[in-house]
Formats: sequence, C-alpha cells, structure tokens
Amino acid sequence: MPISEKDCEALDASDPLAARRDLFALPDGVVYLDGNSLGALPRSVPERVNAFINDEWGRDLITSWNAHGWFDSPHRVGAKLAPLLGAAPDQVLVCDNLSLNIFKILSGAVALRPDRSVIVTELGNFPTDLYMADSVAAVHGLEVRTVDAGSVLDAIDDDVAVVSLSHVDFRTGEVLDLPAITRAAHEAGALAMWDLAHSTGVMAADLDLNDVDFAVGCGYKYLCGGPGAPAFQYVNRRLHAEFRHPLEGWHGHADPFALTRGFEPGPGMTRLRTGTPAMLSMVAFEEALEVFAGVDLAQIRTKSMALTQLFIDLVGERLADEPFELVAPADASRRGSQVSFAHPDAYPIVQALIARGVIGDFREPDRLRVGFAPLYVRYVDVWRAVATLCSVISTRQWDQPHFHERSTVT
Amino acid sequence: MPISEKDCEALDASDPLAARRDLFALPDGVVYLDGNSLGALPRSVPERVNAFINDEWGRDLITSWNAHGWFDSPHRVGAKLAPLLGAAPDQVLVCDNLSLNIFKILSGAVALRPDRSVIVTELGNFPTDLYMADSVAAVHGLEVRTVDAGSVLDAIDDDVAVVSLSHVDFRTGEVLDLPAITRAAHEAGALAMWDLAHSTGVMAADLDLNDVDFAVGCGYKYLCGGPGAPAFQYVNRRLHAEFRHPLEGWHGHADPFALTRGFEPGPGMTRLRTGTPAMLSMVAFEEALEVFAGVDLAQIRTKSMALTQLFIDLVGERLADEPFELVAPADASRRGSQVSFAHPDAYPIVQALIARGVIGDFREPDRLRVGFAPLYVRYVDVWRAVATLCSVISTRQWDQPHFHERSTVT
Repeated sequence: MPISEKDCEALDASDPLAARRDLFALPDGVVYLDGNSLGALPRSVPERVNAFINDEWGRDLITSWNAHGWFDSPHRVGAKLAPLLGAAPDQVLVCDNLSLNIFKILSGAVALRPDRSVIVTELGNFPTDLYMADSVAAVHGLEVRTVDAGSVLDAIDDDVAVVSLSHVDFRTGEVLDLPAITRAAHEAGALAMWDLAHSTGVMAADLDLNDVDFAVGCGYKYLCGGPGAPAFQYVNRRLHAEFRHPLEGWHGHADPFALTRGFEPGPGMTRLRTGTPAMLSMVAFEEALEVFAGVDLAQIRTKSMALTQLFIDLVGERLADEPFELVAPADASRRGSQVSFAHPDAYPIVQALIARGVIGDFREPDRLRVGFAPLYVRYVDVWRAVATLCSVISTRQWDQPHFHERSTVT
Repeated sequence: MPISEKDCEALDASDPLAARRDLFALPDGVVYLDGNSLGALPRSVPERVNAFINDEWGRDLITSWNAHGWFDSPHRVGAKLAPLLGAAPDQVLVCDNLSLNIFKILSGAVALRPDRSVIVTELGNFPTDLYMADSVAAVHGLEVRTVDAGSVLDAIDDDVAVVSLSHVDFRTGEVLDLPAITRAAHEAGALAMWDLAHSTGVMAADLDLNDVDFAVGCGYKYLCGGPGAPAFQYVNRRLHAEFRHPLEGWHGHADPFALTRGFEPGPGMTRLRTGTPAMLSMVAFEEALEVFAGVDLAQIRTKSMALTQLFIDLVGERLADEPFELVAPADASRRGSQVSFAHPDAYPIVQALIARGVIGDFREPDRLRVGFAPLYVRYVDVWRAVATLCSVISTRQWDQPHFHERSTVT
C-alpha cells in the first residue's frame, strides 16, 4: 500500500523529537528543507542578542570582555558544542570561518609531518577544502593527491602527511567511513582532518572514540547558529603541545594583554585563536546551541534516516515516470541528512518549489538537493514537499520563463 | 586663568558635532573614554539587528543571501566605509578580523616583490601586526626589520618588499607620517601597508590621494561597529589584477556557486574574501556606519585634537604635583585621538576611575590610556574625567587592595 499523509502524521505523533520544533521560529506555510545550508532561527536567539547588544555592548561597554565572558567565548562555545562532536570540551574552539580554519589546521598538520609530501583528499570534497589544500601545498611544496571517494584507502601510503576529507559529501550526501579511514591514516603514519560541516548536528562523529586528529565545521547549517556563525575546530589533546600554524594572532598568545614583541603560543586550543571574535555572531551561536540541550544524538540520527528514506520512497512511488535519478546512497546508514536527485530541469523545478514555499536548493550541474533537520522537519513536511513537487511537475509550473533565470546564489 | 567647567560647557555649546551624541545609546553617569578599544553603541543598531534576525534569517531564510544582499555585504559595507578612508568604493572590502587581513595583505604584498627579502616594521606596531609579519617572513624566508618609529625612513632600502606600519601608535598615540613614508617606500620600489585601526573614524588617511598600496583596520573602535565587528582591507586598484594570497576561499572565487575544483580569483576585491561572512556582526557594522553619514572628517579631526589637548592641559593644571608623564606627542597635529600618561600606579588608578564611571584603560607597563571619540565625547566629559582623577588621587581611593587585582583583560 502506498504511503499516505496519515502515515506521516502518525510518524510525527510518535516522534520523540517532535516537541523540539517549538524551539524554532519558522515562517508559516513554508516547508524548509535547506537547513543543510542555513539552519532555521531558534526562538530564543533574538532576545539573547538584543540583551547582548543593549546590556553588554551598550551599557557595560569595554568591561564586558571580562564581566560578560566575551574573551573566553571561543572556548566556552566550543565546550558547549563538544558533546555533539563526541569530544572532551577542552579540544574544541569556535572562531573565524570554516575556510580559514581549514587553512590553520592543514598548515599545522603538515608541519607535524615534515618528512612527508602528500595531502590526500577526494574530488567530491567541498571546493574551499580543496582550495585550502592547494594553498597549503603550494606554501609547503607538497602534492595534493585528489582521488574519488572509493579510492581514498588505496591512496594512503607512507608519503602522506594528512588525509583531508568531508564526513558527508555535500553533493551526494554520502557518509565516508570516518573510523576506518582515520585508522588507515594512522597505520600509515599520517594524520586525519575531517570536515564535519554536513554532519555535525545530525549524526555522531565520535571524535575522541575514533582518535581523530583534527576536525573542522561550520555553525550555520544543522547547528542553527545563524548566517556566517563562527566555525569550529577540534584538535586532539595529544597534539596540543606541538601544534603551530601561520595565522597565530594576539588572541592566541599565552599572555595576550602583555602585548609583547614575540608570539608565545597559548595553552591548548588557545593558540588556534587569531584576532577579536565576531561577538554578535558568537553570542547568537552560543544561544542557538540550546536547541540541542539534552538531546539524544541517536534519536536524531534515527529520525534523520527515516526522513531521507521517506522522501526517496515518496518520490519513487509518486514520480516514477519522471527522470529523477537518486544521487545518494540507497542504504540509509551510508547517507547523511540530505538527498539529491538529478533531473535535467532541476534548476527551474527548484525555483518553482521555492515559489510554492518548499525550500530546497539547486546544486550544479543538475541536482535538486533537500536537507532534513530532524529537530524541526516533520514527516508531514516531507509529504507536503513531495506533493508540491508532484503538482509542480504535473502542471509543468516549473517551465515558466522566470524560473529559468539564474541568480548569483541558489 | 585656569580652565573651568564653564569653559568646557561653552565649547560643547558651539561644537558643530554636538548633535551626533544623540545617535548613541550611552549609559547614564558614565564618561566613556575607551572608544579606541570598543566604540559605543549607535542607537539604531538594536532595531536593525532585530529585524535582520527575525525577517531575514528567521522568515526569509536561505533566500536572504540574494534577496537581502547578504552575499554582497562585504563589498557594500566596504563601499560605505570608503569615504572615511579617502578611497574609491571598489577598493575596500569588509570581512574576517584584522589579524587575518594583515596576513592576507602581507602575504600577497611580498609575493608582488619576489626579488626582495625584507619587511620593515616598527617596535611600537601592534603585536598582532608583528606576529603576522614574523609568520609571513617565516613562510617566505624573509627578514623582518623592526626599527623604532623615528628610524623607519632610514630602514627603507632596495631589499625592502613591504613597509608595514600603524598610522597611529596604539600606546603613544603618535601619528606616523603616512604620506612621506609611503612616498619613500615607493621611491625604493617597495610597497606600503598601513594599519588604520587607531585612526579610521578620527582622522583622514587619504589613501587614494597618497597612493597607498594596502591598508587594513578594524570595525569596532572609532567606527562603532560592535565587539569583533569585521575588519576592512584596502587594496589600491592598480594592484587588483595581480594580487593573490594564500587564504583564498570559495567566497573569493570568480564563480563561487559553480563549486569548481580549481580556484579562480574573483575580480577586484572579491579575491580577498575567504569563507562565509559573520552576518550578524556584519549587519551591525553596516548600520553603525550611519553615525558617520554626511560627517565632515575635518570637523572630527579638529574636535579630536581639541579634546586630547584639553585633557593634557587639565592634567597639567590640576595634577602638576603627581608623577604623570605624558606619553604622547605634545604637538596635537602629531597625536591621534588618544592620550597616555605613564604613572607608577597606573593600574589601580585606572580601576578606581572605572569604579567611579570614568572608563579608560590600562596598558602595560604603566600607562593610563584614554581615547576620545569626537562623535559622542563632550568637552564636559573631559572635565569630569580629570575632576574624577583628581578626586581618586587626592583621596588615595586607588590604593584600595581590590583595585590592584589584575584581571585577564583590561
């Protein structure tokens, strides 16, 4: 029997995470399936930011760096995030953006393996990860060995300094085998850096358990930290003492207000700080993390897999005659919290969906991509998204000229 | 005849900038003389940020990158700031923090002079400028030639790739001769980078007029952009085509959403972008710049010089018997908008002043530092600050034990 809307309502009724949706301010009538690009707004953020601006910046002014803990915020927000990474709190720091943090970590990592000449990465990695690998390689005279995801294990040999990969492929949603690849890197004497941008908040990475060396990720996707929220960095404690990178700035100094001539790296994660953190963005992120308070990551993962499977099943049932080609692992355990379908008219279809209040995104060259944030996406939202897609297709609504016009950002 | 409070009131009454103070939300009873560390809150910022959070992030979600111009914001805020720098708008970009931008600019600058081996800077430059010079020199195998401010011209020879200096010394408030040093650098075939952190918003730099190559600065001091506001970068248009740096990320790509494998630098300042901008901090900065709308920089500079002179004169008149030693040029035209006095008990004195609502700051080793933001500091504020200082000294209030306790940030 085909899946019905009632089936979806029943799933919502028994969803242990259902109440979390009330923690978000979601626009009426919108099905938001782009939390993998920009997470929805947690309801408590506006008031917190307003208090920050008026009472901390406005009233207490410069004294707030101490009085309100601004100076320690990169560590404090890192510690708050740490449980979602499976990390002890003193190994996570929140600051700057993901691109910059990739540069910091990769630079520092290759310096720990000065006798090795290769950075391994894969073709499907996010572009900025690849650009930074190219840049670090150029600075240090190294080779970037870029292979497809299936060949990563074969590419790790004794010349490899660092393996730099994304936990979840941003185009296909494929989950790479973080434990096995990290182990293989270590067995070859290499270090492993994982970009968790598309996994943190929807699945465990168990960084400590897997003895991962380095991880990075952003705050603005599933973590709901707000547009351009500061990014995070994880450095395994066993590497803290020797880790150095070229972007060491005064906030990373052992005694920043001594304002001395030579850089002395601060203890632990301190040395990964650069300059003054963007406090408005920081405080929004800190408050946003409250939506994860006390949450069970296993419940999130279970619901995430169910949501992606439901979307795939509904498209299969209801749009079997359309040229939608699944670009995601069929096995839910190997999928992140997103699904992509290739379709020759993906671009105007995505625009028509957005016009109807179903927000996903388009990714080159021909992908409709939808992401499912388990804290606020319901099973009925998946139903409505596919029902709207059916309507857009059956009426050929997508074929209106203005849905074909390309904008700069999609 | 000694200066009186009435004299100060008269100066305020005839101050053409007096009305600007109403644009700020200042706490009652506080004399705020630390705008050189963290600018006061412009009144219109809270409402703008609130609208941004609720209507752009919350309601319009991912579509805001286009619909509300988020993606272009680093350029747009740069263009809004450009008149304060004396720069054509397409040469200024706002993103990341000052430390990171120094690294970008210095790295790119030395790469434009591959046959040269020296970065010239001065001992009084801000520490993070020196750390980044050290780091760039280490990466490129260069020498950092660190001299005192008076010897900069002598240090510029044919080996010099870049001269990296602060326009205003953060400890002494001394203004370096930007036009003459830039000319000397060019005559020697070198490039000049100026850190305008302590000058933008209180004096002209006339970057285009002086044919400066590069400039950087932060948004959170006199520009009042909020704690950790994104920083700015200026690259002279004649260098745009060839400028490259190692932190090139996807937002700097010529076609960022093509998400292609190789980095292709975007036109003009685009290539100085790294990753996703911290939008909450960005939008606060953008709104804050409204306090400068239509302002006459010459009026700001005139008032700034008058305020620093008034402070010096009042200390001279009223505290002549105390061991205060002026650590600032006696000539107002060679001073920025701050004044420092050395005093053996500067630390507890500053703490006692703060306890009385007069907020300046302490800088190692023995400096009381006060800054004067001409848009919101009145002449009577200077009177009250010195009157309070007299009271703190005469009653030995500063010698209470808790004023001697050191905190992490001052």
